[in-house]
Amino acid sequence: MMEVYLDNNATTMVDPKVFEEMKPFFCDIYGNPNSLHRFGAGTHPKMVEALNFLYEGINAADEDDIIITANATESINTVIKGVWIDKILNGDKKHIITTEVEHPAVTAACRFLQSQGVAVTYLGVNAEGTIDAQQVKDCIKDETALVSVMWANNETGKIFPIKEIGQICRDAGVLFHTDATQAIGKIPVDVQDCNVDYLSFSAHKFHGPKGIGGLYVRKSCALTPLLHGGEQMGGLRAGTVDVASMVGMGWAMKLATSTMALAYEKNHISKLRDKLESAILELPDTIVIGGTENRTPNTTLISIRGVEGESMLWDLNQKGIGASTGSACASEDLEANPVMNAFGSDSELAHTGVRFSLSRFTTEEQIDYAIEVIKNAVTRLRGISSSYAYAPASHASGL
Amino acid sequence: MMEVYLDNNATTMVDPKVFEEMKPFFCDIYGNPNSLHRFGAGTHPKMVEALNFLYEGINAADEDDIIITANATESINTVIKGVWIDKILNGDKKHIITTEVEHPAVTAACRFLQSQGVAVTYLGVNAEGTIDAQQVKDCIKDETALVSVMWANNETGKIFPIKEIGQICRDAGVLFHTDATQAIGKIPVDVQDCNVDYLSFSAHKFHGPKGIGGLYVRKSCALTPLLHGGEQMGGLRAGTVDVASMVGMGWAMKLATSTMALAYEKNHISKLRDKLESAILELPDTIVIGGTENRTPNTTLISIRGVEGESMLWDLNQKGIGASTGSACASEDLEANPVMNAFGSDSELAHTGVRFSLSRFTTEEQIDYAIEVIKNAVTRLRGISSSYAYAPASHASGL
Repeated sequence: MMEVYLDNNATTMVDPKVFEEMKPFFCDIYGNPNSLHRFGAGTHPKMVEALNFLYEGINAADEDDIIITANATESINTVIKGVWIDKILNGDKKHIITTEVEHPAVTAACRFLQSQGVAVTYLGVNAEGTIDAQQVKDCIKDETALVSVMWANNETGKIFPIKEIGQICRDAGVLFHTDATQAIGKIPVDVQDCNVDYLSFSAHKFHGPKGIGGLYVRKSCALTPLLHGGEQMGGLRAGTVDVASMVGMGWAMKLATSTMALAYEKNHISKLRDKLESAILELPDTIVIGGTENRTPNTTLISIRGVEGESMLWDLNQKGIGASTGSACASEDLEANPVMNAFGSDSELAHTGVRFSLSRFTTEEQIDYAIEVIKNAVTRLRGISSSYAYAPASHASGL
Repeated sequence: MMEVYLDNNATTMVDPKVFEEMKPFFCDIYGNPNSLHRFGAGTHPKMVEALNFLYEGINAADEDDIIITANATESINTVIKGVWIDKILNGDKKHIITTEVEHPAVTAACRFLQSQGVAVTYLGVNAEGTIDAQQVKDCIKDETALVSVMWANNETGKIFPIKEIGQICRDAGVLFHTDATQAIGKIPVDVQDCNVDYLSFSAHKFHGPKGIGGLYVRKSCALTPLLHGGEQMGGLRAGTVDVASMVGMGWAMKLATSTMALAYEKNHISKLRDKLESAILELPDTIVIGGTENRTPNTTLISIRGVEGESMLWDLNQKGIGASTGSACASEDLEANPVMNAFGSDSELAHTGVRFSLSRFTTEEQIDYAIEVIKNAVTRLRGISSSYAYAPASHASGL
């Protein structure tokens, strides 16, 4: 049976080239980079190279910081809690602006701040599944400490107006953080061009290893660290640096963002995504949530009326295909997909979303196989659906 | 030239057996463990096995939690800041007790809490480089929220009276955290026997990978998480689990704590450490800081009067030997070793410490070579010392 992994927004395979670069740092070049001897110093050249790849990948300036963290969740918590401590607990601000469709790391950190008396505005998304930059501008107050808006949505792939929001925040003198976890390696990300102050990312979303991420911090925007301790990362994030994973993340960034990789993805991944999507849309009563415009090239979130998302996943899994109903980070609760709720989907539709997310390792053969399996699954599941058979939407509206 | 790594308290080589267990989780079994499909579920058996190894390694009860973190620094910050938020900011406590010789992760987190108005008592060490449990008892007040004392010191290897302190805290109803980073794999660690509520450790100190650590949390002692976000770790630590590293940490724990490994270390590492130490002590004006009793079997911190620690490291490094003057995490500032300061060393002595820390991969051949190099280095450095030639301590006291 063919195995087809179409859940690359949850995590990705480590690129074998990336793993090759990591290998020496487990059993051979294993010193602590902070040690003064040859075993420590031996780690430095490849760490410097990796850091350069990260700076180039997001166009950070030399005087900015890129802090190596465990993952985007740590990066995000560092920003939100750093702002809380520095600007709210020990400052005169008391308000944060974010959206209703952020990753749980942002949402849960904001809910924690609310429990500590901080005011948080959650901007709703429009019919296209994004926000208008003007919404941000309208909500900024004197006491606003931070705006946190994702670069691209993990469920739909929809791209947010980061450049416009960055300009609004800069003009208003408000700090701006973006969770770029789903953007890095998929679309161009430029922190200078977009006036970003903080940017979070995770290597395992772009074919790097799990357990390593980054936080871009604009010069002079340093915050109280989340991890106090040793002087690693200039005192901004304590803890022995995971050299192997840092080297892996650097190479993953280089491979994901180099011009060739981007061209490759644009020409290849989006074509395969569109082929898959078009084939599913040929079935009646199917829609792409948020529409097909302005998305990352690898993602589609499709609602198939009459088909429970979880049942669909089960059928696909039986045939070797991995997909998801939404964020893996929220998969342990069986609530309706909060992003689909935010879109104003009706309660039936909110349970029918299936997300397919491709990678540069996805092949046309895999997509052809997936199309066949999906069509069969929809037929089977609609055939046993108690609601769909009696009132398919197209049938009802066609009368 | 022979290469001899004697800085295993800074970090260790990943055991090749550990790396073998990790390998499949980069490019083959790469799913997100939270995903519902086969790619996610494929990670589960080895993760369960790893978690079992961790529970067995520290004798945790089934109903306790072991949270997978990025490193001991994160574990420590989780405890100290969790206690701050839950028991101090949102509770009626306002006091923490720790020691003057903790790792910077504990010290820096406590200093941060002081900046937020929390009272912190730093217990000084006695001439043997440890504290008396009675000191803890004397300092506990009604408003004490937490006692945090390391299990074994990173500089000297001295073992602290954890069982007695655990009993005192339990009797007083005060939470007890221990940083066991330097104890795991070197001496038996039993959270039940010692009434520990929280215990922090880092895999890379016992031949596991960097970038992964653990936090033991006794049942019903859960705190507000440091990393808010997804529901990983039962909501206690968000962020996609680094499967490869978690599997590696589990195996590293198993190999380090199994009865055979312990016996091997006791019979082998301590003999080699003692051989090295005895040879250095044959030189005049040398002492073991904190004395030779009650230490981890792999560590010695030796003061060699008239020899600047940094110069010694340089000489050793030229000959292929890696050692340190103290904690790698504090190596970026050139202050005198704070642990030696805490011992009340005079200011000259405080700059003369050199730490040698062995591992189960250290060989007798390496130790013999190191002894020869060290003796030559001491002769050379004392020969060019401006202070030592005129007033060696033994010469002065012998007159």
